[in-house]
Amino acid sequence: MATYKAPLRDMQFVLHELLDAEKVLSTLSGYEEVSKDVLDQYLEASAQFCENEIAPLNRAADEEGCHWDNGVVTTPKGFKEAYKQFCELGFPSLDCDPAYGGQGMPKTLGFPSMEMLVSANVAWSMYPGLSHGAYSAIHAHGEQWMKDLYLPKIVDGTWSGTMCLTEPHCGTDLGLLKSKAEANGDGTFNITGTKIFISAGEHDLTDNIVHLVLARLPDSPKDIKGISLFLVPKFIPDASGKPGVRNGVSCGSIEHKMGIKANATAVLNFDGAKGWLVGEVNKGMACMFTMMNAARLGCGMQGLGLGESAYQNAVAYAKDRVQMRSLSGTKRADLPADPIIVHPDVRRMLLTGKAYTEAGRAFSTWLAMQLDIEERSTDEAIRQDAADLVALLTPIAKAFMTDNGFVVTNQAMQVYGGHGFIREWGMEQYVRDCRISQIYEGTNTIQALDLIGRKVLLDQGQKLRKFTKIVHKFCEAQAQDAQMKEFVEPLQKLMKDVGDVTMHIGMQAMMNKDEAGAAAVDYLRLVGHLVFGYFWAWMVSVALGKMESGDKKFYQAKVHTARFYFQRLMPETAALLQTLRSGSKNLMDLEEDSFIF
Amino acid sequence: MATYKAPLRDMQFVLHELLDAEKVLSTLSGYEEVSKDVLDQYLEASAQFCENEIAPLNRAADEEGCHWDNGVVTTPKGFKEAYKQFCELGFPSLDCDPAYGGQGMPKTLGFPSMEMLVSANVAWSMYPGLSHGAYSAIHAHGEQWMKDLYLPKIVDGTWSGTMCLTEPHCGTDLGLLKSKAEANGDGTFNITGTKIFISAGEHDLTDNIVHLVLARLPDSPKDIKGISLFLVPKFIPDASGKPGVRNGVSCGSIEHKMGIKANATAVLNFDGAKGWLVGEVNKGMACMFTMMNAARLGCGMQGLGLGESAYQNAVAYAKDRVQMRSLSGTKRADLPADPIIVHPDVRRMLLTGKAYTEAGRAFSTWLAMQLDIEERSTDEAIRQDAADLVALLTPIAKAFMTDNGFVVTNQAMQVYGGHGFIREWGMEQYVRDCRISQIYEGTNTIQALDLIGRKVLLDQGQKLRKFTKIVHKFCEAQAQDAQMKEFVEPLQKLMKDVGDVTMHIGMQAMMNKDEAGAAAVDYLRLVGHLVFGYFWAWMVSVALGKMESGDKKFYQAKVHTARFYFQRLMPETAALLQTLRSGSKNLMDLEEDSFIF
Repeated sequence: MATYKAPLRDMQFVLHELLDAEKVLSTLSGYEEVSKDVLDQYLEASAQFCENEIAPLNRAADEEGCHWDNGVVTTPKGFKEAYKQFCELGFPSLDCDPAYGGQGMPKTLGFPSMEMLVSANVAWSMYPGLSHGAYSAIHAHGEQWMKDLYLPKIVDGTWSGTMCLTEPHCGTDLGLLKSKAEANGDGTFNITGTKIFISAGEHDLTDNIVHLVLARLPDSPKDIKGISLFLVPKFIPDASGKPGVRNGVSCGSIEHKMGIKANATAVLNFDGAKGWLVGEVNKGMACMFTMMNAARLGCGMQGLGLGESAYQNAVAYAKDRVQMRSLSGTKRADLPADPIIVHPDVRRMLLTGKAYTEAGRAFSTWLAMQLDIEERSTDEAIRQDAADLVALLTPIAKAFMTDNGFVVTNQAMQVYGGHGFIREWGMEQYVRDCRISQIYEGTNTIQALDLIGRKVLLDQGQKLRKFTKIVHKFCEAQAQDAQMKEFVEPLQKLMKDVGDVTMHIGMQAMMNKDEAGAAAVDYLRLVGHLVFGYFWAWMVSVALGKMESGDKKFYQAKVHTARFYFQRLMPETAALLQTLRSGSKNLMDLEEDSFIF
Repeated sequence: MATYKAPLRDMQFVLHELLDAEKVLSTLSGYEEVSKDVLDQYLEASAQFCENEIAPLNRAADEEGCHWDNGVVTTPKGFKEAYKQFCELGFPSLDCDPAYGGQGMPKTLGFPSMEMLVSANVAWSMYPGLSHGAYSAIHAHGEQWMKDLYLPKIVDGTWSGTMCLTEPHCGTDLGLLKSKAEANGDGTFNITGTKIFISAGEHDLTDNIVHLVLARLPDSPKDIKGISLFLVPKFIPDASGKPGVRNGVSCGSIEHKMGIKANATAVLNFDGAKGWLVGEVNKGMACMFTMMNAARLGCGMQGLGLGESAYQNAVAYAKDRVQMRSLSGTKRADLPADPIIVHPDVRRMLLTGKAYTEAGRAFSTWLAMQLDIEERSTDEAIRQDAADLVALLTPIAKAFMTDNGFVVTNQAMQVYGGHGFIREWGMEQYVRDCRISQIYEGTNTIQALDLIGRKVLLDQGQKLRKFTKIVHKFCEAQAQDAQMKEFVEPLQKLMKDVGDVTMHIGMQAMMNKDEAGAAAVDYLRLVGHLVFGYFWAWMVSVALGKMESGDKKFYQAKVHTARFYFQRLMPETAALLQTLRSGSKNLMDLEEDSFIF
């Protein structure tokens, strides 16, 4: 069976050696006291919980799944107890506002903690994960009474939350949604409609579930501009704030899925359920995007966390399993065959895991820090820069990290040979669990359209240049270092390629918007490699400076893995640059009735 | 739920218009009478059976799986009845030897038939599929009494067959196998050992199961050269040829797997089971390879067939599902949104399916024809050429087609968005069912090592040149056709690149064999694109000549899809050429204990 050990050494490298988190956080309002020691203590506590409490539940929970019985959903064995402990240990409140009982820790810490939860048990992690989204939306857009009533319960984990967007006929295109809201005249609304694919939509872990629901008022526009956000609790809190009357929302069924089987994906029927408006009328999409952006980043973390788990199990198996002799001569004459880690292609598969995972960890933790800076810097210009970087890079975090996660989990499974296909080994579960991350919270195509359309072309590349300026400055600073040349040169070349191709697509798209759609997915991967290439080069520059500090193997591994990244993964860009420029005609010319004869 | 419609028009295009099967087969001994009409009739009968009998069982059978109870395995509901009908219709005997009741049809027909079986229900298709492997091995290597006793029963489907290679500690490295065979002095042997991952290893479809088992005699070498092949029936036939005494082989359990759940993957315990030698002592691997090569091709057909099914369902969904407006302007004002087939990236995903599937169909049918030529040509030189082409291209058929199948099934699932992840839609099953094809019958890494090592470098590229000569001749013949230029030029360039890089790796590997291992997987994909590129160009050349023949849309679609292939899929070679030349150091330098800290 698969096991999990939190990659604390690498997390600490990222936080302390790469990002110098203590120093950066000390400049942010409210995080002045967050020391290296505090960060490490939290990481270790998270690691302990994840390794010992939820990782051991992962395999059996996938087999058992959730149970639906007449609207009541029971989670797999052990989930409830683990959740209770999670709350008792204070984890739900980690990066929440102290005004509502939170511990006020930065997202710079929250993201590595999230990675561990995902690695250990992604289906379980989604119950608190969705609550956090609801917390953010209410915190940002709710009225004060709403915050006072709901947030403390969500922060301490007593209640959970959901986001209810999708309907049977619309997922990507929420402008089509039919759920309706009717004002009761007392400030409340009656919500009616059917929502599907609601993760953690119904379960037995908490006393109450706070649904955040998109619906349309009768006189609102019939498109995406006519949608409002409502808070709809499963039980309406009574005067004392305890769950009171059962609201008109019920779970019609739960889906049978390829993966994340232990997370209840609910069909929710709202039948005149009482709701309260969150934010302004017809501004529901904007409010939802507070949650959605966080959810997209969380989704990217699923790609990372599942890749990490799959990777570390594959390494252990590759060292243990003996099969064939090394082509370049026997390595372990004491064994009947060599451990398969001696074979070049097994190493290629493993290194793909290492290279994508470590870059993803550095990138996502840095991005979390940008979120903290965006929220807490005292300098408005710095806040704006951080906000722009986050906006630009969120679709990359979501799509690039989940696509890579799927590659990594599949290659890790491949290392196991036939055993990888057998459920008890746990490897195929990582593949199945990871697969949804490429789809939900906006498919990876939607992410790519968001990147190229709204994030890059809409502001003529201003946000993109904020990022490339960072890369450019880094390359300049490293220009004199001969050891950095093998990384800096390809990075500079890729930066130029990205610039050229962005211009090219921008020109094409002015004449025909389908050109942007045709290029989008390849463009996202191209920019993704620029981002990961930058983080690898940056990690190498830090590692080179520490070679003599006593942990030489660790730093040498960074250099080797970076080299693997630049020589074996980044060359994908050579293909992308060709397909990107091939235009939309090769996609659009085929008539609809010519796909099948 | 997913449905299946056999792609008869495309199969007929390949057989008649591309390959001119009737004419080629008429030159082969025994196939003189196989006319176009005969081929079409068989194809239509296969299509009918697959569409109406086994495709409808596919989804429910995945949910139900196989049942093991104290050594007895029951297949899912409907499997037995469908198998009975399959036998009554004479399908098991299609391309078998008339001397044993076969219909003596060529493999050129057998392969498209196999594709349909796989598309409709891959788990079901493996029961007759494995039997066919056993048929081939006994037919090629069995003694006459063995053929007379066993083949008619296998040919008419009364008995089925298996191939028993893998053991718990060895799959790839069969030299390690421990199963032993002891001579009884009467020409029989006692076989003892445990075999795992035996597809169709135990079931309720047939009266008897004929296991072909690799085992080692006591005084045989302790490596791969000491393995012999034995026939071990589940029931020992009595004097009248009926299943008699139960043999000492039992099914200890069946595996719980990611996919192909309706095919029983058995653990078989041989406990002094009576067996008969097939072929010579210690030549078991060579005999097994008669089956194995066929199994590898069959495995490649799984990638093709599952890709086809996933593709056609995704096309139907993309025409039906409306979501968002086309970026280049509303296409269907009569609908609340446009069908998603208007979106460029949805088309990119669909066209990937179309391009890989149609090339795979042309290639595999051509390869089947080479098998027929190898077996039946009256000209020895032609037989040898065909044999060399089959040997060279078998690893490509297996690995390239299954890797592509996994890409295609995943992209088809992605077209469905969230619904693709829900089991009832059937799309995620194609992904799960396809995943094993990259692993079994020799992992795709093993295929790649076989290609570069045994098939290309071992004979200094002689076999490879037999293929490139064909491509070269084709390119020369098309050189004057302006419409072919966009295909011929990149093909010629790729051919040169393949030549150069083959030479390069050959040189490197002389110094260090790990260089071949480090390049193998990328090399296989590179050559795969040369092969598929050739088939696309060839198909275009045929299509261009028929544009005015009344089926213009079909032929235009060939040209469009070829263009998509050359502009959107073949550019992967630009990346491969870089990674191929990056050498083994970036894989081998990392120390074993530096993968995880």
